[in-house]
Amino acid sequence: LNGSNQVWVLIACALIFFMQAGFLALEVGLVRSRSATVTAMKCIVDWSVVSIIWLVFAYGFAFGDSAGGWLGGSFFGGDGIEGSSGGWTMFLFQLCFAGTAVTIVSGAMAERVGFHTYVICSAVNVALIYPLVAHWVWGGAVSGDETWLYGMGFRDFAGSTVVHSVGGWISLVAIWMLGPRLGRFDADGKPRPMDAFNVPLAGFGVLVLWMGWFGFNGGSTLQGNDSAAAVIIKTNLAGAASGLVAWAHARWSTPDRDVEMKFMGGALTGLVAITASANMVSPMSALAIGAIAGLVHNYAFELLLKLRLDDPVGAVPVHLFGGVFGTLCVALFGKSSALPKGRFEQLGVQAIGVVAVAVTCVAITYGLLLVLKKTIGLRVSPREENEGLTLCRLPDVPAQPALSEAEIRRLMGG
Amino acid sequence: LNGSNQVWVLIACALIFFMQAGFLALEVGLVRSRSATVTAMKCIVDWSVVSIIWLVFAYGFAFGDSAGGWLGGSFFGGDGIEGSSGGWTMFLFQLCFAGTAVTIVSGAMAERVGFHTYVICSAVNVALIYPLVAHWVWGGAVSGDETWLYGMGFRDFAGSTVVHSVGGWISLVAIWMLGPRLGRFDADGKPRPMDAFNVPLAGFGVLVLWMGWFGFNGGSTLQGNDSAAAVIIKTNLAGAASGLVAWAHARWSTPDRDVEMKFMGGALTGLVAITASANMVSPMSALAIGAIAGLVHNYAFELLLKLRLDDPVGAVPVHLFGGVFGTLCVALFGKSSALPKGRFEQLGVQAIGVVAVAVTCVAITYGLLLVLKKTIGLRVSPREENEGLTLCRLPDVPAQPALSEAEIRRLMGG
Amino acid sequence: LNGSNQVWVLIACALIFFMQAGFLALEVGLVRSRSATVTAMKCIVDWSVVSIIWLVFAYGFAFGDSAGGWLGGSFFGGDGIEGSSGGWTMFLFQLCFAGTAVTIVSGAMAERVGFHTYVICSAVNVALIYPLVAHWVWGGAVSGDETWLYGMGFRDFAGSTVVHSVGGWISLVAIWMLGPRLGRFDADGKPRPMDAFNVPLAGFGVLVLWMGWFGFNGGSTLQGNDSAAAVIIKTNLAGAASGLVAWAHARWSTPDRDVEMKFMGGALTGLVAITASANMVSPMSALAIGAIAGLVHNYAFELLLKLRLDDPVGAVPVHLFGGVFGTLCVALFGKSSALPKGRFEQLGVQAIGVVAVAVTCVAITYGLLLVLKKTIGLRVSPREENEGLTLCRLPDVPAQPALSEAEIRRLMGG
Repeated sequence: LNGSNQVWVLIACALIFFMQAGFLALEVGLVRSRSATVTAMKCIVDWSVVSIIWLVFAYGFAFGDSAGGWLGGSFFGGDGIEGSSGGWTMFLFQLCFAGTAVTIVSGAMAERVGFHTYVICSAVNVALIYPLVAHWVWGGAVSGDETWLYGMGFRDFAGSTVVHSVGGWISLVAIWMLGPRLGRFDADGKPRPMDAFNVPLAGFGVLVLWMGWFGFNGGSTLQGNDSAAAVIIKTNLAGAASGLVAWAHARWSTPDRDVEMKFMGGALTGLVAITASANMVSPMSALAIGAIAGLVHNYAFELLLKLRLDDPVGAVPVHLFGGVFGTLCVALFGKSSALPKGRFEQLGVQAIGVVAVAVTCVAITYGLLLVLKKTIGLRVSPREENEGLTLCRLPDVPAQPALSEAEIRRLMGG
Repeated sequence: LNGSNQVWVLIACALIFFMQAGFLALEVGLVRSRSATVTAMKCIVDWSVVSIIWLVFAYGFAFGDSAGGWLGGSFFGGDGIEGSSGGWTMFLFQLCFAGTAVTIVSGAMAERVGFHTYVICSAVNVALIYPLVAHWVWGGAVSGDETWLYGMGFRDFAGSTVVHSVGGWISLVAIWMLGPRLGRFDADGKPRPMDAFNVPLAGFGVLVLWMGWFGFNGGSTLQGNDSAAAVIIKTNLAGAASGLVAWAHARWSTPDRDVEMKFMGGALTGLVAITASANMVSPMSALAIGAIAGLVHNYAFELLLKLRLDDPVGAVPVHLFGGVFGTLCVALFGKSSALPKGRFEQLGVQAIGVVAVAVTCVAITYGLLLVLKKTIGLRVSPREENEGLTLCRLPDVPAQPALSEAEIRRLMGG
Repeated sequence: LNGSNQVWVLIACALIFFMQAGFLALEVGLVRSRSATVTAMKCIVDWSVVSIIWLVFAYGFAFGDSAGGWLGGSFFGGDGIEGSSGGWTMFLFQLCFAGTAVTIVSGAMAERVGFHTYVICSAVNVALIYPLVAHWVWGGAVSGDETWLYGMGFRDFAGSTVVHSVGGWISLVAIWMLGPRLGRFDADGKPRPMDAFNVPLAGFGVLVLWMGWFGFNGGSTLQGNDSAAAVIIKTNLAGAASGLVAWAHARWSTPDRDVEMKFMGGALTGLVAITASANMVSPMSALAIGAIAGLVHNYAFELLLKLRLDDPVGAVPVHLFGGVFGTLCVALFGKSSALPKGRFEQLGVQAIGVVAVAVTCVAITYGLLLVLKKTIGLRVSPREENEGLTLCRLPDVPAQPALSEAEIRRLMGG
């Protein structure tokens, strides 16, 4: 990395970091007002936790010299990064991806998870789950070592699996073990609408995330040339097609009050789905991937509701279903020349990757949440949930009242 | 385009794309809360529509090989872009400009236009109106062919005419044909204030747009060198001067409750006005252009109210009046060496361009809206307008109530 | 500056400019809703004022040829910038820093300062205070002349002193002379909580500012290479550590309702503190600087309350205490090879710089506010403060009511 390519990757880092703000806006916009503040704080706290653990050992696990293709083992505490082939630029770039994988979960768990429980989940995610998967798929990027999934022929350009489905699987386990928000489903299991704090702010967040994808996928070329532009174009086309299809499907086939969520979630699902293959499909294939992703999103969204799984911001349909679908699209839509295997065999390899990641994420998350449930607990109290989550419960002090007319007159010397 | 220039243009694309989010924040902040969500959604939907049409044929119309200087005719479906002189980078860069021109209209039509009507307008805008104008002025950028307005000597550096006045003319026709929001004017034609959803968010949007202009004008140099910095400086000075003049004018000569709108709109008008000439004026001229633009904005704002034209976010004063004024400033303030004609003749040529674009935009938009009025209609029902626009009308389902104290006690096992 | 380094600095300019929007979101989120709009407007107005004064003479004062190391004296009105060693790129880059120093004060003064008073303070800040300090420390950057503080060995990489403590000292004097908001402290001097307009929006602002620091510190290397990435990493680590420490401290040692403010302010304090030394400390030192900064913030926050100094957005703990602490960290944590003096002597030099800047900022601000107090006044009237500040006081016109059911039926022809 040098010269203009280096600058391009540095910018991509800024754009991907900004996705933290995009997630914040999206999640804050979609939860109820009572939980908005703490939801925002989580998106800053988890980034902080991720940043520190990434330095101490997680980057080493993910991108250090490989121990048999299963886990990295150098770069701990930042040792040896300066002057390595990736340098601090690659460390920063990969940190931003790790932060995305972690933050995805905050929306799924929103409005009932305990704050410390969430922080611990984030820490374990970045310390163990994410580095494992990242190492298997991208672990040779710096060291040049061959890691097992990549060596088998598994391809994931910018992280449909590594970033999005990792966040998605953890989210799925979390919402299942947490249970739905109080009152989310009525006695018959029918979902009851919950007022969102600020849907336009969520829309703003979608556009921030969309721009973030310019860096997420465009930066993953590691080259600031026309191939980056082509990747961005295809990313953008998939998001556009997916949003429009999800909107049309929600509007006409199943007209419902979640049409805004389906449109926004649909667009994001297209962006997730193209992420694995944006460097190896044609623009027309990108449109097709997006269009299908829009339907994948809507059916997944409905499926969760039928299963009484409560995902306040729709993280699972977007990141898990979009991520898995996108991973398979490598084999389905990728140009033959870019695939290490024949198309059919490639599909098998991609499926093996999906399953391996699923098992890893589900097993670790399930074990972790089980331990947390028996110790500090998973959920806040029903009272706190009903009144709104905070960073710190305190006895109420009434806010100061506005001044009375008499006081104002006195102050004005009248 | 290569090396660091290429990276600079790629970044400019991200900044210009982010203007979609800026428009969203600005518009959402200025409409009433009841219409905020659907206004936000429009800014995402129209980008999606634009992205797809741009690939299929609109980029080809605008930047393909010219048919006699009037319309382009290659690059359809993305064919031949890879490896062309502009490559995907130019495709992306120009897509971001097209998206801006289209989104401008969403604010003008806000709070009463039907959702499908708006989407169709956006599609026709990007499919026909914008490519026509873009071809006439910038059409030779990739093919090298001479197009008629450019060939005549018309100059518009970064789009005062091509982007802003196109959006402005369409907005003007739209607000005239749509009519004002219910209750916007009283029986005597006096405007009645309508509560904005979130003016601070609109202010945030102004700064996002302002930053977007760093890419919009700075990127239009296509060179990541000191000339880009000079263009950004002049752009910034015009915005600064324009905002301050508009604020001072609104504050002292006609003190009124729209002073925030005049300040924000004034600043944006200066940014629009400098766009045509930012590469060919001095910093002092940029200040002058901005200062005048502030007054242009305020008088235009008042003029619309007198004509009972209801422009909820002030799109017409900013983009139409600012765009036309800026186009003329090329002749009035541009350095002689940068003008293809003598100053006086140049003014005539710029005026011809203004008129040609006006006729084109007004004629097509008028025809389109007339057809839509007789078919699917232009406006939502008075009931929907009064209650707030949505993406999908549904019978009301009451939101779930907060839990009662009794329920909480039961859940807490008490 | 050329090629990819130039592009990197241009991007840094955009990121730092965007911090204006970050401040806007942070401040708007933390003030009461009644003051939110005018607080937002100030962040745009002051940028406008700064932009113009910077061109006319402030850049010349700060970066022109030095008159004895005390004040610059060229580049007035932009003269001679084109083709100078810094060019317009350096002008723009430094403008963005100046804008940051000025905007910091807007939050401290919020909710009671008169609008014109604030604008005049901003103008004097950018016209005199900031250029003085910038010249003393960075004045040789373009001219190569040696200025007195830099010549003595004082080092401030990206502005812990030049930007942040300048804004901080002015803020401190301002909140002392302005006095607290009405009702902020009860008769016993105990602070009474005031409802924030939108804490999640403040959180969004924190992340925007955080991204801005990628450009603020990363851009200050003036090189788009791996050293920029290393600087960003260390900046990020300090912010992360500081936020977490401030949160933990607020949560457990003094659990209180300001825990969100302490977390957000803590993170920002770490970012401020690392700014002086991000190019000369190790990642582990960055963590240490951040961790200490978190405590510095919380104790400073409490100290202000004890002194009945009302700082609505916490500008003084963040920018003044963080800035001073960070300036000293140059000597405490900087690599010996990067320090012009021995560690102990360096600490003395850094302290001299802190004191010199303190005296300058306090004296000028005190004098200015004294004059303003005796002339146009510092505060709005108690009535305006109680009802909320605006850009322009007007007799109330009631907003139009929603349409009645009868009117709707009539309009629908029923």
